[in-house]
Amino acid sequence: MQEATGPRRVVVEGVTPEIDGGRFPIKRACGETVVVEADVFADGHDVLGVRLAYRREQDAHWAEAPMEPLGNDRWRASFEVSALGRYRYTVLGWVDHFATWRRDLAKKLEAGQRVPVELLVGARLIQETGRRASGDDRAQLQRWADELGRQDRSDADRSRLALSQDVQQLVARYPDRSGQTTYDRELTVVVDREKARFSTWYELFPRSCSPIPGRHGTFKDCEARLPYVASMGFDVLYLPPIHPIGTTQRKGRNNSPDAGPGDPGSPWAIGAEEGGHTAVHPELGTLEDFRRLVAAAQSHGLEVALDIAFQCSPDHPYVKEHREWFRIRPDGTVQYAENPPKKYQDIYPLDFETAAWQALWQELERVFRFWIAQGVRIFRVDNPHTKPFGLWEWVIGRIQRDHPDTIFLSEAFTRPKVMYRLAKLGFSQSYNYFPWRNTKSELIGYFTELTRTEVREYLRPNLWPNTPDILTEYLQHGGRPAFMSRLVLAATLGASYGIYGPAFELGEHRPREAGSEEYLDSEKYEIKHWAIDRPDSLREFIGRVNRIRRENPALQHDWSLRFHPVDNESLLAYSKQTADGSNLILVVVNLSPHHRHSGWLDVDLEALGLEAERPFQAQDLLTDAYYLWQGSRNYVSLDPHSAPAQIFRLRRRLRTERDFDYFL
Amino acid sequence: MQEATGPRRVVVEGVTPEIDGGRFPIKRACGETVVVEADVFADGHDVLGVRLAYRREQDAHWAEAPMEPLGNDRWRASFEVSALGRYRYTVLGWVDHFATWRRDLAKKLEAGQRVPVELLVGARLIQETGRRASGDDRAQLQRWADELGRQDRSDADRSRLALSQDVQQLVARYPDRSGQTTYDRELTVVVDREKARFSTWYELFPRSCSPIPGRHGTFKDCEARLPYVASMGFDVLYLPPIHPIGTTQRKGRNNSPDAGPGDPGSPWAIGAEEGGHTAVHPELGTLEDFRRLVAAAQSHGLEVALDIAFQCSPDHPYVKEHREWFRIRPDGTVQYAENPPKKYQDIYPLDFETAAWQALWQELERVFRFWIAQGVRIFRVDNPHTKPFGLWEWVIGRIQRDHPDTIFLSEAFTRPKVMYRLAKLGFSQSYNYFPWRNTKSELIGYFTELTRTEVREYLRPNLWPNTPDILTEYLQHGGRPAFMSRLVLAATLGASYGIYGPAFELGEHRPREAGSEEYLDSEKYEIKHWAIDRPDSLREFIGRVNRIRRENPALQHDWSLRFHPVDNESLLAYSKQTADGSNLILVVVNLSPHHRHSGWLDVDLEALGLEAERPFQAQDLLTDAYYLWQGSRNYVSLDPHSAPAQIFRLRRRLRTERDFDYFL
Repeated sequence: MQEATGPRRVVVEGVTPEIDGGRFPIKRACGETVVVEADVFADGHDVLGVRLAYRREQDAHWAEAPMEPLGNDRWRASFEVSALGRYRYTVLGWVDHFATWRRDLAKKLEAGQRVPVELLVGARLIQETGRRASGDDRAQLQRWADELGRQDRSDADRSRLALSQDVQQLVARYPDRSGQTTYDRELTVVVDREKARFSTWYELFPRSCSPIPGRHGTFKDCEARLPYVASMGFDVLYLPPIHPIGTTQRKGRNNSPDAGPGDPGSPWAIGAEEGGHTAVHPELGTLEDFRRLVAAAQSHGLEVALDIAFQCSPDHPYVKEHREWFRIRPDGTVQYAENPPKKYQDIYPLDFETAAWQALWQELERVFRFWIAQGVRIFRVDNPHTKPFGLWEWVIGRIQRDHPDTIFLSEAFTRPKVMYRLAKLGFSQSYNYFPWRNTKSELIGYFTELTRTEVREYLRPNLWPNTPDILTEYLQHGGRPAFMSRLVLAATLGASYGIYGPAFELGEHRPREAGSEEYLDSEKYEIKHWAIDRPDSLREFIGRVNRIRRENPALQHDWSLRFHPVDNESLLAYSKQTADGSNLILVVVNLSPHHRHSGWLDVDLEALGLEAERPFQAQDLLTDAYYLWQGSRNYVSLDPHSAPAQIFRLRRRLRTERDFDYFL
Repeated sequence: MQEATGPRRVVVEGVTPEIDGGRFPIKRACGETVVVEADVFADGHDVLGVRLAYRREQDAHWAEAPMEPLGNDRWRASFEVSALGRYRYTVLGWVDHFATWRRDLAKKLEAGQRVPVELLVGARLIQETGRRASGDDRAQLQRWADELGRQDRSDADRSRLALSQDVQQLVARYPDRSGQTTYDRELTVVVDREKARFSTWYELFPRSCSPIPGRHGTFKDCEARLPYVASMGFDVLYLPPIHPIGTTQRKGRNNSPDAGPGDPGSPWAIGAEEGGHTAVHPELGTLEDFRRLVAAAQSHGLEVALDIAFQCSPDHPYVKEHREWFRIRPDGTVQYAENPPKKYQDIYPLDFETAAWQALWQELERVFRFWIAQGVRIFRVDNPHTKPFGLWEWVIGRIQRDHPDTIFLSEAFTRPKVMYRLAKLGFSQSYNYFPWRNTKSELIGYFTELTRTEVREYLRPNLWPNTPDILTEYLQHGGRPAFMSRLVLAATLGASYGIYGPAFELGEHRPREAGSEEYLDSEKYEIKHWAIDRPDSLREFIGRVNRIRRENPALQHDWSLRFHPVDNESLLAYSKQTADGSNLILVVVNLSPHHRHSGWLDVDLEALGLEAERPFQAQDLLTDAYYLWQGSRNYVSLDPHSAPAQIFRLRRRLRTERDFDYFL
């Protein structure tokens, strides 16, 4: 039964953004804006006061912004988030009796009606307003109320006063909000640092960083590799697990069930006598070495991201010390990982249905906190979709409460709703289906879903053309042009993207077998020696693309993405721009790695703020070639073997006072 | 901070139908079905048990229906509502360990693996199941567990038992639901009687029912008019306010500000010395006469609906007895209704911002209860959008708690979101924009919104081609064909519709002045004498259309509405069918009241369950002409002056066992 709401006449509903009825927060990065809309209306036709209210979660005081009517009872306002952590927002409204009275008085005067009683009503309203004010304002309002009430003065004089800007402005400072309605939910924004939105990742195996072929690489070797990674313009250096690797059931080269004596094992088979998730693989060095690497990376503009894979090798200390965290089979052995009929006997999954789940969750939280203490603030979480959803909401919430600068990347290549749920629960960034979206319609469809629907409020995609687990068919068969075009797509469709190198820049494309996405001689099971100085490396191309990303803020955000028609199914064109339109990027990619494709591009000039009648400049940032374009239709032609993509910066031409055209 | 959810691994989200995060109920009529869908999934790939739970609000016990997977983690089930009042529903799910184990066992066996330990795991699961069972089931489960555990029996034998239907079925009766997740909201269905969904309204002014011109009609005269109304097939007789009419500032003919001595005033200027909202206008008769009318109507299959207009004439008893319910102006007078610069000095609106609002709300509730005590169960509420929204949710909730058979029709011709909010708050039916939707694209757009979006869950449209306030331009200028086509549109697009008669069937079409939607010599301000036996009356046509509605259940529901293309902008075609497809109606309307229009109709055969290769029968229910059609494309041609519309019943031809075609 609904309780009686009495004189609360205003309704607030349809508030956006709002995820699942307010169950989940939206996400923003520092400095971004939250645009809030709501349906706000009351019975009748009175004038409303409508406000967006917002505050940092820890603040008691709400700041307010007046909302502007958009028509059809829809209102809009926005606020900027400037501090890490959580903000709250909601919407409220009230019937503004003075504004209503003022509007009606004006209408009556316009119709030539006499308004003596109306003026007395106004006097009363202003007097009541005065009671909510104090000091000078109160005295001023009382004076005006007295004047409006003076029957010895003409209606015309008093009406002029009643409708004056002065009166309106002062009265508006003391609205009667006693009958105010506040939306029945407080909504939450999680505010991350900028890198959660704009980041450029490079994944490498430290053990393959040794300059001497065959020798196990160390953190020190990895340090020596930093200038190389930095030279390509990356800002996150992501390391697969760095922990001791189990020997029991260790996998050999190419995932063979029998490891040879020299086989180093998979870094994801975590844990050995030397320790588990808070230990460092001895052959990589010491914890001290790791901390040095973190610091050295920082001096190169690189932040180290760690892989958190909550699973154990049979030799992990947990297996002995916390048997209660594993599922024990009737024969007394520990249940290994399975995907029937496949068995992964080198991996023991944790049993999250254990009665001892609380201790287990606390331990996993401790793992994050341990690495935070070593200076790590970015975690790539392995297979989060095989652990309980509740764990992630709980642990990310707790960690971010103390360290709001922590970034979590969800590695969940799984069903769409599972991916979305993990993002809602708190992951700052998410792996996604980009690796398998290759055709024009696939790319347009998928990126429309990611950037134009509610999904964008909580899921930030991080685009990976390859990973140690994913060598796509496209890369296997497309040659160098395929690597180039996928790099450009990842780097310009996504504000965040990453590559697994040096496999990527060296064009590694041989699958373990036909039909497989696994690499032949995968680095997951052996130490590689990469010839990073090979002349055919894409290193410089990647460096150029990443510099373009850094220099063009349009590419540092996802939401402005807009596709433009090209009359060729192999050519994809899209633009991004900054909110103020000052930085405007147009990308054209030839999706075929084999053939030259040409076509007419139909730029949506209006969306880009360009005029049909005036030429505009297009600078290809990859080649530095300049073009002068006019109108929406422009011819493009891309040969994948020379340049599979073009990244144009478009510049509007401005008319100066002297009517002299020049380029911005 | 999210609390730790521990072993609850299942997620339930995206439940539909759900209005505003569960804030508002959905609506159904008795006997209808609620189809519920939800996204349900867990971490990993375990098999889930998913149930729809539902109950009557007053019951403690939840009934459950298993939900079927639709793919993409979406599940569906439904339940039928059979009792008036409120139901609750929600969705729950759990990880089904036995079903998971069974699926994995089958996969392993298929791959030729040995499964000795798996069988022991199964024995344990069945044994645990036994502990949740009792009696014979418990003993049986224990026996099976023992057998699975017998290492002296072959794996093959034991596997056969493990995978047997018997085991599966018995185990499924005792699932382990200790880790079950229940959706965090209980959603509500309001169940109304069938008339809330399917109703045929006739509005008349009792005071115009006198057989003698010039004499004020009475309830007794109205009784004599019942056979006439019933002969047209209506089932709701809706009366404008029947209360004493004020004399102060009474409006004269054609809304003139000065009433002549004989002018009866507007029934909406409610209240005089004789009483207010619970009194009867003396010239109509007594309360006893009214109750007789209600009973007599019932014997003609008609239910009397009353107009509830919460506003007062200056002579209403409330004005003296409850001055605190009105706004008092500084000069001591009561504030009359205004829409500046227009003044309505014959109407005093109630002041819902009064401090005495609680007493006021209680009094208004008493008005409803008073008329319920006189046998009324249908109320048409006048201008609900000028009273606080909260009042309606409160009063409808309270009335329906005691009288769940009460129907409320919202007369809110106002902004879309306000209309929708009123429907969400509890109104059973809603006036809507039908009167002003005349072109093909307007009709398709509007009825798609009403019947294909979430709106249909809470808003039931009631379509009125005319009302005493609305004589549309279309009817003013379209002549008899316009009245016929609008009647057919209202009666077949809407399961509920109504007309204001006898103005409608007599084709009354003269506006007060050009550009006005008011009737000339409007019945609102004077007593009319209608020549109901005029030979050009649409009475018989209306009767035929209403009989078609009664005989064809497809027309008694709104949701199956589907538009079909016709290559002529003046021809509109649409179908409706019953859930089982046994009743299938196709309507074609010529929207132009002036010219014959012809075109090719392209029936969506698949949607209608018709085969392209087999002819089907089309019977025009208005003329009883039979056609044999084949294929999707059929030629239609409608002359507005003979038949502006056709209402076809389509019949599939069935193949009998003897391969003999006949019509259903």
